[in-house]
Amino acid sequence: MERESMMRQWQLADRPIGRALADGDFRLADVPMPVAGAGEMLLAVRWLGFEPAQKGWMENFGGYVAPIELGDVMRGMGVAEVVESRDGRWPVGTMVAGMTGWTEYLVSDGEGFDVCHPDLPPHAMLGVLGIPGLTAWHGFHAIGRPVAGDVVVVSGAAGATGSVAGQLAKVAGCHVIGIAGGAEKCAWLTQEAGFDAAIDYREGKVAAQLKALAPKGCDIVYDNVGGVVLDAMLARLAIGARVVLCGGISRYEQGGEIAGPGNYFNLILRRARMEGFIILDEQPRWGAMRDRLAALVLAGRLQWQVDEQQGFEAAPAALARLFTGANRGKQIVRV
Amino acid sequence: MERESMMRQWQLADRPIGRALADGDFRLADVPMPVAGAGEMLLAVRWLGFEPAQKGWMENFGGYVAPIELGDVMRGMGVAEVVESRDGRWPVGTMVAGMTGWTEYLVSDGEGFDVCHPDLPPHAMLGVLGIPGLTAWHGFHAIGRPVAGDVVVVSGAAGATGSVAGQLAKVAGCHVIGIAGGAEKCAWLTQEAGFDAAIDYREGKVAAQLKALAPKGCDIVYDNVGGVVLDAMLARLAIGARVVLCGGISRYEQGGEIAGPGNYFNLILRRARMEGFIILDEQPRWGAMRDRLAALVLAGRLQWQVDEQQGFEAAPAALARLFTGANRGKQIVRV
Repeated sequence: MERESMMRQWQLADRPIGRALADGDFRLADVPMPVAGAGEMLLAVRWLGFEPAQKGWMENFGGYVAPIELGDVMRGMGVAEVVESRDGRWPVGTMVAGMTGWTEYLVSDGEGFDVCHPDLPPHAMLGVLGIPGLTAWHGFHAIGRPVAGDVVVVSGAAGATGSVAGQLAKVAGCHVIGIAGGAEKCAWLTQEAGFDAAIDYREGKVAAQLKALAPKGCDIVYDNVGGVVLDAMLARLAIGARVVLCGGISRYEQGGEIAGPGNYFNLILRRARMEGFIILDEQPRWGAMRDRLAALVLAGRLQWQVDEQQGFEAAPAALARLFTGANRGKQIVRV
Repeated sequence: MERESMMRQWQLADRPIGRALADGDFRLADVPMPVAGAGEMLLAVRWLGFEPAQKGWMENFGGYVAPIELGDVMRGMGVAEVVESRDGRWPVGTMVAGMTGWTEYLVSDGEGFDVCHPDLPPHAMLGVLGIPGLTAWHGFHAIGRPVAGDVVVVSGAAGATGSVAGQLAKVAGCHVIGIAGGAEKCAWLTQEAGFDAAIDYREGKVAAQLKALAPKGCDIVYDNVGGVVLDAMLARLAIGARVVLCGGISRYEQGGEIAGPGNYFNLILRRARMEGFIILDEQPRWGAMRDRLAALVLAGRLQWQVDEQQGFEAAPAALARLFTGANRGKQIVRV
């Protein structure tokens, strides 16, 4: 098959440090189509997936991944199809997931990519079987250490990670309260995702609502938000609570540093633990976690939402949707 | 022996909520001497020991101990001598330690009291073998989980708890940096207590000083202070660090709520854990911990300072010394 000699890439043009994302942060560039060498494959990107962490990568915040330089292709997860193979790892037609970047095509020997699950849509590898699902699995189980009967509160509960974390808590026999922004998201939590209760943080008084819903306190706090929402949850710790620090979307809203949680002192009074993790560290266990997650999805015990935008050019706007809360479920783009 | 029919007690007269301690918080009362019943002993208090937590008890802050009511005898640890025994647990002359309260005499069946260590001064039960030493032992070992070679930073390092925690870290083969207020305390840390380095927080730039002393970060943070000092330490976490939340003396200085640590987000980026505890929970293991601490003291591997004020009437002023940093080592009063 004859291919175009050029393709498109989104490159990093500016760093959104201390501010929201802007149009000028990305540049759509025409670049030569890469050529697969011996043992390599040409991959055509079919979906891109979007994570809040990508804004941190653009800022070179935190230093836990290699820096992105200005002019580099924007880093990100994607699902791609093998469209040409020169004795590469997988045959033409195979759907694989990994760090494709925001590009229409790329060449790879397969290192760092996984074959998509055969019984679910390929883009599940970006959501319930991808970073969000794996993050929820590891954070909830390894850091949260649930015991049946625990009261669990999840912030960012309608998001791609929070919604999985809360449902895993239900599977584990816990009582689950979700915190999300807006009546529509809260209704989805209780009516579709099986949460026991939902708190709309936009109505304010999160700590008071949480006190009413969890009068004996929360055994597990699963935090995707940080800031005042984390502080409200820290006010309601049960003795021996575990606080899973998963993310801090509020850091981005504020455009800078996140507020410190004044109620951290409750970690002493309630003999509690607050712990963070980076899911990239757990890569050797991703396969085993994916098998468990896929089994729950196939058994109908794990609901997941996908928010699919259309077209490669939509990538920057799709990323921005995460920070306004516009997305409903996992944000992806069909290239 | 004929005894007086009356004795003195310090009673709680007001709660220092949102402010420093004041003279009017205590009332010195003359009350009838208690009388030992069958199986009981009359205890004469010889030393009182002082803890920052006592201010929190006066405020009924945190709810982890039974409330003190206005008019109650002030709660506190002490060392007492059995001066009369009606077939009680221990013979006359035995020195015991426990929650005596701020009273000259009390009656007890011995429940909650421990016999003082025979080879150390009785008041060691208030310091290196008491709540501070036990707190340091449990916090450092059970929460900090040291590994030889770890870099350890201790705040409030010249205090009764911090000085033991830091020396236990040296015993465990760690590199230890202490943070304390003033050149005199810092000199004691490095010249007497064997710390590898000391930072005088009154000179400011704690984070920068810590960066210079621990360029690869700190594996264990042992925090007695909270506020800006905790935040500076959180800026310098090593991957996989453990943050032991032991106390928050800065809460008292500020007279109210402690500032939230904005750098808590580093717990995610550095895959770190921050955990609190209450030493009262560990009472079943106090005896075993005391044996280990006493062995280290007798082997000359654990230095400890005592700041002894004189006279029962000095108790309120002795407590206040903790919050101005006036004390040099464990604050006690010889009754």
